[in-house]
Amino acid sequence: MGIVPGPNQYGKAEIRLVAVDRGTARHEIRDLTISTALRGDFAAAHRTGDNANVLPTDSQKNTAYAFAKRHPIGEVEDFALRLGKHFVGTREPVRGARILVAEHAWERIEVDGAGHDHAFRRGGAETRTAAVTVDGDDAHVVSGVEGLVVLKSTGSEFHGFPRDEYTTLPETSDRILATAVSARWRHLGTEVAWSESFASVRAALLSAFATTHSLALQQTLHAMGEAVLEAHPGIAEVRLSLPNKHHFRVDLEPFGLDNDNEVFFAADRPYGLIEGIVTRDDVPEAPIAWYGLPEF
Amino acid sequence: MGIVPGPNQYGKAEIRLVAVDRGTARHEIRDLTISTALRGDFAAAHRTGDNANVLPTDSQKNTAYAFAKRHPIGEVEDFALRLGKHFVGTREPVRGARILVAEHAWERIEVDGAGHDHAFRRGGAETRTAAVTVDGDDAHVVSGVEGLVVLKSTGSEFHGFPRDEYTTLPETSDRILATAVSARWRHLGTEVAWSESFASVRAALLSAFATTHSLALQQTLHAMGEAVLEAHPGIAEVRLSLPNKHHFRVDLEPFGLDNDNEVFFAADRPYGLIEGIVTRDDVPEAPIAWYGLPEF
Amino acid sequence: MGIVPGPNQYGKAEIRLVAVDRGTARHEIRDLTISTALRGDFAAAHRTGDNANVLPTDSQKNTAYAFAKRHPIGEVEDFALRLGKHFVGTREPVRGARILVAEHAWERIEVDGAGHDHAFRRGGAETRTAAVTVDGDDAHVVSGVEGLVVLKSTGSEFHGFPRDEYTTLPETSDRILATAVSARWRHLGTEVAWSESFASVRAALLSAFATTHSLALQQTLHAMGEAVLEAHPGIAEVRLSLPNKHHFRVDLEPFGLDNDNEVFFAADRPYGLIEGIVTRDDVPEAPIAWYGLPEF
Amino acid sequence: MGIVPGPNQYGKAEIRLVAVDRGTARHEIRDLTISTALRGDFAAAHRTGDNANVLPTDSQKNTAYAFAKRHPIGEVEDFALRLGKHFVGTREPVRGARILVAEHAWERIEVDGAGHDHAFRRGGAETRTAAVTVDGDDAHVVSGVEGLVVLKSTGSEFHGFPRDEYTTLPETSDRILATAVSARWRHLGTEVAWSESFASVRAALLSAFATTHSLALQQTLHAMGEAVLEAHPGIAEVRLSLPNKHHFRVDLEPFGLDNDNEVFFAADRPYGLIEGIVTRDDVPEAPIAWYGLPEF
Repeated sequence: MGIVPGPNQYGKAEIRLVAVDRGTARHEIRDLTISTALRGDFAAAHRTGDNANVLPTDSQKNTAYAFAKRHPIGEVEDFALRLGKHFVGTREPVRGARILVAEHAWERIEVDGAGHDHAFRRGGAETRTAAVTVDGDDAHVVSGVEGLVVLKSTGSEFHGFPRDEYTTLPETSDRILATAVSARWRHLGTEVAWSESFASVRAALLSAFATTHSLALQQTLHAMGEAVLEAHPGIAEVRLSLPNKHHFRVDLEPFGLDNDNEVFFAADRPYGLIEGIVTRDDVPEAPIAWYGLPEF
Repeated sequence: MGIVPGPNQYGKAEIRLVAVDRGTARHEIRDLTISTALRGDFAAAHRTGDNANVLPTDSQKNTAYAFAKRHPIGEVEDFALRLGKHFVGTREPVRGARILVAEHAWERIEVDGAGHDHAFRRGGAETRTAAVTVDGDDAHVVSGVEGLVVLKSTGSEFHGFPRDEYTTLPETSDRILATAVSARWRHLGTEVAWSESFASVRAALLSAFATTHSLALQQTLHAMGEAVLEAHPGIAEVRLSLPNKHHFRVDLEPFGLDNDNEVFFAADRPYGLIEGIVTRDDVPEAPIAWYGLPEF
Repeated sequence: MGIVPGPNQYGKAEIRLVAVDRGTARHEIRDLTISTALRGDFAAAHRTGDNANVLPTDSQKNTAYAFAKRHPIGEVEDFALRLGKHFVGTREPVRGARILVAEHAWERIEVDGAGHDHAFRRGGAETRTAAVTVDGDDAHVVSGVEGLVVLKSTGSEFHGFPRDEYTTLPETSDRILATAVSARWRHLGTEVAWSESFASVRAALLSAFATTHSLALQQTLHAMGEAVLEAHPGIAEVRLSLPNKHHFRVDLEPFGLDNDNEVFFAADRPYGLIEGIVTRDDVPEAPIAWYGLPEF
Repeated sequence: MGIVPGPNQYGKAEIRLVAVDRGTARHEIRDLTISTALRGDFAAAHRTGDNANVLPTDSQKNTAYAFAKRHPIGEVEDFALRLGKHFVGTREPVRGARILVAEHAWERIEVDGAGHDHAFRRGGAETRTAAVTVDGDDAHVVSGVEGLVVLKSTGSEFHGFPRDEYTTLPETSDRILATAVSARWRHLGTEVAWSESFASVRAALLSAFATTHSLALQQTLHAMGEAVLEAHPGIAEVRLSLPNKHHFRVDLEPFGLDNDNEVFFAADRPYGLIEGIVTRDDVPEAPIAWYGLPEF
């Protein structure tokens, strides 16, 4: 009986890496934010500050930069797998690694109707993410998207809910539904055409959001996850965190004006928050693929 | 001799307004953040708390919402002019108004290759701005853009600078040039095809950034402003605030790798900050159009 | 075999509540940010949008406000327990609740050497947190602190680490150690003198940070957790997330100046990130108390 | 007639500097964020990219770090004056400089009832600021404070305001008044006991906020500025930007509860924004001391 170190990990967070492919005059750029974390037997460092097993986070950072030169970066999932397997494979006490990558989009600046060779502007606020977990000889890939802000100006109802003594909300058959999608989905394998998969999942999420006549944001959440799983047999589960970004109809009656769902106040806080997992009932769970990720 | 109230203004800041045009089943949405400020004789409120001249900021907010219903919002500049003139024209002690509007872009979600009727996703992080100043019978319109992040992967040099005892920076004939454009431009009139003008100015800024072989960010700044003024006789001046978002080439030599401007560390702080005005030398200045705006 | 809703929860996030105790002329204020989440059988809402079991998040918000009036708020842990048990106890399908509370500190403004009766200024940036999980008849309390930024100007070394081909970091026997403590600790019971406990834990964390001669941030993390557990038999485990906020010694040699750890550049990103659990080896784990919390 | 460079400046923004005074075992630390900007004849850089007059922003950064070693930092105003005069005095084309410094507070960690020698925790969120303008042989010092968040739980009324067709706000004789003070004040000289002056100004701002029975935030603003000027003959003017951080009384009547200004919703946006200058009527203005600062 005593006080002991439990699970732990350490690494370098938010390594900002921009890579330019200068193979031809038509440059390609990649803009990544990378976080590494190593897992294994670091008890000595925790107990006594013995760092014999502690590869510095600075070295982890250097590795990320070096790998961006040594191989073409390619897909972020592959890049993360390469990094994670390197850390686990080459250092004995390191038995696991978690690599997070967020990719920020850039588009070519248009000049005279054509994309410029080496001038770019930042794309939308959304980021594509990869969370790779290497666990001994196993590897798990969770892809995702953050900051995908969407809104429906109609096609959303909310009624039929229970009313308790603290319920004052009126029922509605027409409201704005808006959210900022945070989604992650777990792949069953590690050999995937990642970009095609990402584009297809993103399209499925967006299409399901748009076309689901919503009776509850929960229903929309499930429809979004279901659309992804139906189209992608190689994906085991989808986890979604959907803030219900309230848009309140402004009361214009005092000013002699009606407001037929035309003018809204977009509130900051509080917001509803609907979180859930849509999963297949015939695949094994993989808790380690999710451990420590913010998604529910 | 004594202590007196100097210039002052008051209003409601960051009114979040989303408006839906439901005229047809194909909805249009507008997403604005509006700030109002009134100027005039409010000395009594400052000296003694006598509010007889102080139209509440809550009423200003209500006015913004009501105006979004009373008229089609239309161009943000026109919307701001309408609001500003209303405040100045209808309340005796109000002799001036400053209306700021930021417009956030939305795009239709694509479903089966076509834009959906009432489902949207947030466009890029950049915002279109309008800063309207009504000053008695005069009105000034300053349009702008915020958060337009751009990067050139080559075509930027920096050398020939003086070296003092604190100078260690090497000269370079090839570096990444990246910035987040904050720009505002003052129109000479108030009858303008605002959206066409905005699109054209934005294109000129982007094109000048892309095509100027840069020897200094100052030169790029000037070229950007010049491109706007050359194409727009109705614009008097352009004010630009350009952070030099440093991208440092990572030294990969310790790892046996060269790095021919391929792998960079994108730093957060500090950053260079280049601010300047590009102006015509034959138009009158209008300090009141700029008073209190963040741009240099 | 099919696609099914997995675990899920929903609630109202970031309810901003300020309460004033006006029992005497010497007011007391409380400033809380509250998030509620309900767990239970919401499959119908997910599958078909049937909301019969879905108490609106708006009602949850109302409940928080009403409870702040119905009873004195008291300790945030007790307030969260009261809310959570209410939700679980009164609505049949609700089998669990997660209540998060962050408390923001205020201090009296000093006027003529005495604290004012009803004028306050915001205290430090750190917040006290409570994460309460009600699970059927069980309840778990996890207290915490966020944003506790600390720095040691000496008494920190880092050496003896392994060197691989990507290691360039020099060893050091004197560096700045700085971090922003995010800590949560799980109580074994729910009848605790919470404020005294919080003050004592916070003091233990700070004292251990200050007095541990650090050979690794991991060692400091463990010492901080150990100090808490040694002083608090009623606490089962401590989870810490410690960013290593790097302070780089500036090279002043080019300017003919030495720099004996006197002048530092405080970097934003990347940063090390050390996460770990310090636990007793003789208490049962309680995964549900932690599920979905950001701490490792 | 043509397109010309107007006023401009350039420099290094947000240089993060932490300095440790290790003169004795009882260390002192200083934590500054510094921005430099040079003004002068940089037209050639703007027109043609000729950098002969453009001391790199990197050199400006180096200078800040070197100065932190060369002299004791001392008061931030003196540090900024020293930097500004250096830039203007030593480089011919530089005719002006603007130096901004923000100081972040740290306190000693208490261990066994005494402040530790070399372990610190971050103080409140507020920052002390200095904005120094060197203009040829002249120098102007504007001191300030940012992020000083204050709240009164009573002693604030708002009534007697005009009502137009868009006014629905009820009059009130008791409300919460809360704001985040941004204040800057201009000194008439440059030889001042800066820290004593700062402490005294801050106390005057706080005391006036606390003790003014407020009929309008404008009145509070004026009282705050007046208190500063009355106590400080060496200060010419005070500029204040005060967001009215609305706290809305929650309607608890539906739940059978009254709410005698006890439970409030603290809203994020929109907020009122009251900006104003309190000045002496017998001192010369100094527009250049304020040019480009965010305060109204």
